[in-house]
Amino acid sequence: MQHQLTYYECTDSGHPSMSMLLSMMTMVSDAHSIFVGLDRAAVDKSGGAWVIVGYDGQLAPHQPCFGDQVIIGTRALAYNRFFALREFWLSDLDHQQQYVHVKALFVMMDLTARRLMRIPARLITPFASPLKKRLPRLAKPGQLPAEYAARDYRVRYFDIDINHHVNNARYLDWMLDPLGPDFLRQHRPVAFKINYEAEVQEGATVESRYVLDRPTLTTVHEIWAGGRRCTTAELSWQTA
Amino acid sequence: MQHQLTYYECTDSGHPSMSMLLSMMTMVSDAHSIFVGLDRAAVDKSGGAWVIVGYDGQLAPHQPCFGDQVIIGTRALAYNRFFALREFWLSDLDHQQQYVHVKALFVMMDLTARRLMRIPARLITPFASPLKKRLPRLAKPGQLPAEYAARDYRVRYFDIDINHHVNNARYLDWMLDPLGPDFLRQHRPVAFKINYEAEVQEGATVESRYVLDRPTLTTVHEIWAGGRRCTTAELSWQTA
Repeated sequence: MQHQLTYYECTDSGHPSMSMLLSMMTMVSDAHSIFVGLDRAAVDKSGGAWVIVGYDGQLAPHQPCFGDQVIIGTRALAYNRFFALREFWLSDLDHQQQYVHVKALFVMMDLTARRLMRIPARLITPFASPLKKRLPRLAKPGQLPAEYAARDYRVRYFDIDINHHVNNARYLDWMLDPLGPDFLRQHRPVAFKINYEAEVQEGATVESRYVLDRPTLTTVHEIWAGGRRCTTAELSWQTA
Repeated sequence: MQHQLTYYECTDSGHPSMSMLLSMMTMVSDAHSIFVGLDRAAVDKSGGAWVIVGYDGQLAPHQPCFGDQVIIGTRALAYNRFFALREFWLSDLDHQQQYVHVKALFVMMDLTARRLMRIPARLITPFASPLKKRLPRLAKPGQLPAEYAARDYRVRYFDIDINHHVNNARYLDWMLDPLGPDFLRQHRPVAFKINYEAEVQEGATVESRYVLDRPTLTTVHEIWAGGRRCTTAELSWQTA
């Protein structure tokens, strides 16, 4: 889908923020579902909901700016009984420059039992992706060492989206904000791995733990809420 | 300009949040400037920057939903030596339904002297709005009473926009969040008045003071930072 980048999707660098990039991915996968005839009502009927397990993405050195027209694309890559793999990309209108490429792994959560469910055939076959016994795994974020820094964030009402859950793209804001404006202005992310383990609940205060390894320009992050680790991530950076 | 509402511009009601509505207004006034030949560079050359003084807006009972195509419109209404008045609207594609109507008052700030400056003729005549000695004043928000509730918010890096300032649409999130999810889900804003008095600085912690008058469903808000009142606002609500 074509999309014009607004200034409020971008940081003061003029380029889209990580949380907005992930929100755009959600937007285009929703549009893809509707395109193949699976709107929210069709998914709701199954008693389940798609849940993101993780992302593994790369960003090109050249990124688009607010005001630019971009293409946000997605494709269902493969699935098995429990997992569905999808790729996303952000490119210019001529498909000459790929700004971002992301693989994402999804599962289906039984909303009543609050546990994994088999993906119903009618919710996956319309995507015409191959059924595979074994799906490639997404690369895992590195471990947070014993010594780390941390900052607390209160979940705000406006972090909650139309699915009545905390928009999990927002987690990136909690993860990156404690790195500070100086670091964020002088560096840009070139790769990221995110692994979602548990949901952050409305009204929670999260603890954003992180460590920055200066020599490799790598940051490792964990989001904790209610005594539980909810999300881990690792980002690689370059000097902006 | 035509715009498709994304899910991340909307709250869990499915309708755009107040802060996103104001961001859309900024987006379309920027687009209007560029359309008349005044891009950022042209404004920068004057040594000044447009600064918003206040908003006075109404919202219709029927609001658009994420995924909807809308028109965001703007028009320069009038100006004098120091002030420029502009109106904004959000409507459906056929201009049959006007969802939001806002008047906004702007001044020009001398960025070196940090004070009001006369609006240079070359930055205002392209908008072809009438020069008026006296501009109508925007309605002022009511006074916060002596007894109020308050909550602190830390300005996040991602609240800063391409102008390297805290995006003043975000103030609405700090103002409305303390009203709580129950109130925000059961009510919708129908009118708002906002008055910006001083800028919130990067790295600040703001105190969001508010009071809710249940009989009239009116809320009054003040944002304080560094011992200074930065913004006042008043909203009228109806049961959703």
